[in-house]
Amino acid sequence: MSFEVVASCSGARAGMLTTPHGVVPTPAFIPVGSQATVKSLTPQEFSALGTKLVLGNTYHLYLRPGIAVIEKLGGLHRFMSWSGPLLTDSGGYQVFSLAHLRQVSDEGVRFRSHIDGSEHLLTPELSIRFQEALGADIIMAFDECPPYTDDRNAVGEAVARTHRWAERCLSSKQRADQALYGIVQGGAFTELRRHSASFLTTLGFEGYAIGGLSIGEPKEVTKAIVEETAALLPEDKPRYLMGVGSPDDLIAGVSMGVDIFDSALPTRTARNGGFFTRYGRKIIRNAHFRDRDSPLDEGCDCYTCRNFSAAYLHHLFRCEELLSYRLATIHNLRFVMRLMEEMRRSILEGSFPSFKESFLASYEPTDEAVRLGQREKGSKRRETK
Amino acid sequence: MSFEVVASCSGARAGMLTTPHGVVPTPAFIPVGSQATVKSLTPQEFSALGTKLVLGNTYHLYLRPGIAVIEKLGGLHRFMSWSGPLLTDSGGYQVFSLAHLRQVSDEGVRFRSHIDGSEHLLTPELSIRFQEALGADIIMAFDECPPYTDDRNAVGEAVARTHRWAERCLSSKQRADQALYGIVQGGAFTELRRHSASFLTTLGFEGYAIGGLSIGEPKEVTKAIVEETAALLPEDKPRYLMGVGSPDDLIAGVSMGVDIFDSALPTRTARNGGFFTRYGRKIIRNAHFRDRDSPLDEGCDCYTCRNFSAAYLHHLFRCEELLSYRLATIHNLRFVMRLMEEMRRSILEGSFPSFKESFLASYEPTDEAVRLGQREKGSKRRETK
Repeated sequence: MSFEVVASCSGARAGMLTTPHGVVPTPAFIPVGSQATVKSLTPQEFSALGTKLVLGNTYHLYLRPGIAVIEKLGGLHRFMSWSGPLLTDSGGYQVFSLAHLRQVSDEGVRFRSHIDGSEHLLTPELSIRFQEALGADIIMAFDECPPYTDDRNAVGEAVARTHRWAERCLSSKQRADQALYGIVQGGAFTELRRHSASFLTTLGFEGYAIGGLSIGEPKEVTKAIVEETAALLPEDKPRYLMGVGSPDDLIAGVSMGVDIFDSALPTRTARNGGFFTRYGRKIIRNAHFRDRDSPLDEGCDCYTCRNFSAAYLHHLFRCEELLSYRLATIHNLRFVMRLMEEMRRSILEGSFPSFKESFLASYEPTDEAVRLGQREKGSKRRETK
Repeated sequence: MSFEVVASCSGARAGMLTTPHGVVPTPAFIPVGSQATVKSLTPQEFSALGTKLVLGNTYHLYLRPGIAVIEKLGGLHRFMSWSGPLLTDSGGYQVFSLAHLRQVSDEGVRFRSHIDGSEHLLTPELSIRFQEALGADIIMAFDECPPYTDDRNAVGEAVARTHRWAERCLSSKQRADQALYGIVQGGAFTELRRHSASFLTTLGFEGYAIGGLSIGEPKEVTKAIVEETAALLPEDKPRYLMGVGSPDDLIAGVSMGVDIFDSALPTRTARNGGFFTRYGRKIIRNAHFRDRDSPLDEGCDCYTCRNFSAAYLHHLFRCEELLSYRLATIHNLRFVMRLMEEMRRSILEGSFPSFKESFLASYEPTDEAVRLGQREKGSKRRETK
């Protein structure tokens, strides 16, 4: 398990992350495969889109099918038939965003399943034990993720608890073939972020995540905190920005020195009929796509754009056909993967700033009010599902 | 456009059906792609499963996206990105099974859309005009399909009308590169079937379908009628049994000299979590699949069985993951395609009876009461969707 920065350009880094299941060139985007599946796609398919690293969720897998089932079947790689690098989230974020009737104590979090209301306890030790049973290449520390609306005092307490849990995660870890990453918390409070980064890097993790962002705060706040925090993290370790996945945010993250990103945004947006183009996000259900003979995005090299017209996609979405979710997912994921590949190339060639400028000159970010509204809808949907 | 019987064995036929878009070895099963998509699969994928001929539905495509849209985009082949042989149904069956407030007259059928209640008229001439615009290789005559519960008198009238419509279909047809098939009706009344077969073969079609079956009648009735009717159809033309798709029924059909079959059963059953094995149909949601490490069907060569355990499929279905529908569809469709390939090989080798006997010795057909119950549920679902 190693990480090497092979080039940097105006703060952006190109690296190589080596894991027991293969090498991940960075900057890298990780598709979300919460329930041991990247929704609608086979491993063969998401691999062909350029995916090098996939995320599974301990919270979801603990509830269904259960950690013991996956362990019995040979671990998460084998269960989902993916032989490449894999990362599991600790369950921390999901316990705070999905579960019901949470009771947080120093021991851990008692909660009720969002699926059937059954009661459970997740602790740092259990999270590590579960992640060792799942067997991903990269595992995450169990953290507390307070809502964006919490005040400085509440966030400060969450940071302190996250730090105590981080120490327990480190000391309960047994497997040597998994890399454990720490997660910096601290909400929108610069000094808390600084404290958290400093404390966790002193403990010594194999990588550092910036957590507790993209949870409803304005984009300007996200940017300021990422910039502040990334600068405090060790140069020689991977930096992972959790929950970020829109094209403009990925570019912003890379320019601030982030190496790894995960987000359900590209795939969830696809299933809702939103697709990325170099001019911004478009809505396939709009009537003007009804007889549009050209692909979703001219110049895109994905299977969807090479084989189908926007009119066909419009038809599939209107009919709520299963193929629609898949073809749109293929497109959005390929769009993001290609963006990562292009950023990496430009860093290696020393031309990242001009790539960034030229991409952003044509790409119109989603309107901030629309974005926060969609996020709200999205989180309600996740909650009920 | 030609058809040649290359071998026969105890009544079963192996043939070659040549169309402008390629050759279809028979006996052949046609997956249903009503709305210009075989639900959840790409054309690349259903082709790899062994599909040589696909079905589109004029009724569905007329309502969404509209015939003019598909025509403008270059026809159905191009619209759905399928360059192989294609067949369109006339809309007759759907008008009688899906549409609301039907008014049947000699002119045609006035109906309300099952989607938005809008009023439409479909006539033999319009059906042919629409099918010529869609551009399939094989097109079907517009027929009246009375319910199984109709009495002899009502079915007799429907047969007479179907015959008048068949003549109008023939005389309104303009394109020479499409083969028009007639549809024998007559319900469960042997003499009406005999009359219909005799009348239609006198008119002269390029193929003959047996329609109005698999609409809720007992399997024994279906078998008796197919046997009676198939024997009355010309030796040198393809015989197409509409709506039949369970493994045991396909074997029965082939042994009675049928060449082509279509049915939504394998794909719909898959989406409902039912999968075919050589021992019969199984239900993936059953608890004993929870940690079953073996594939759905040992010995199956499909992508699903080569890559995933039954436990993984069980998990995906429990979570209602999109990938579940697709992986189960791949398996069931491959199961049926392979059965067709094996039947063809055994006919060419002169060993069809022993293949049939050995398959049926291990394959337990779905219980008749369960089957009719599932059919009922299925048709209600189709009706509301």
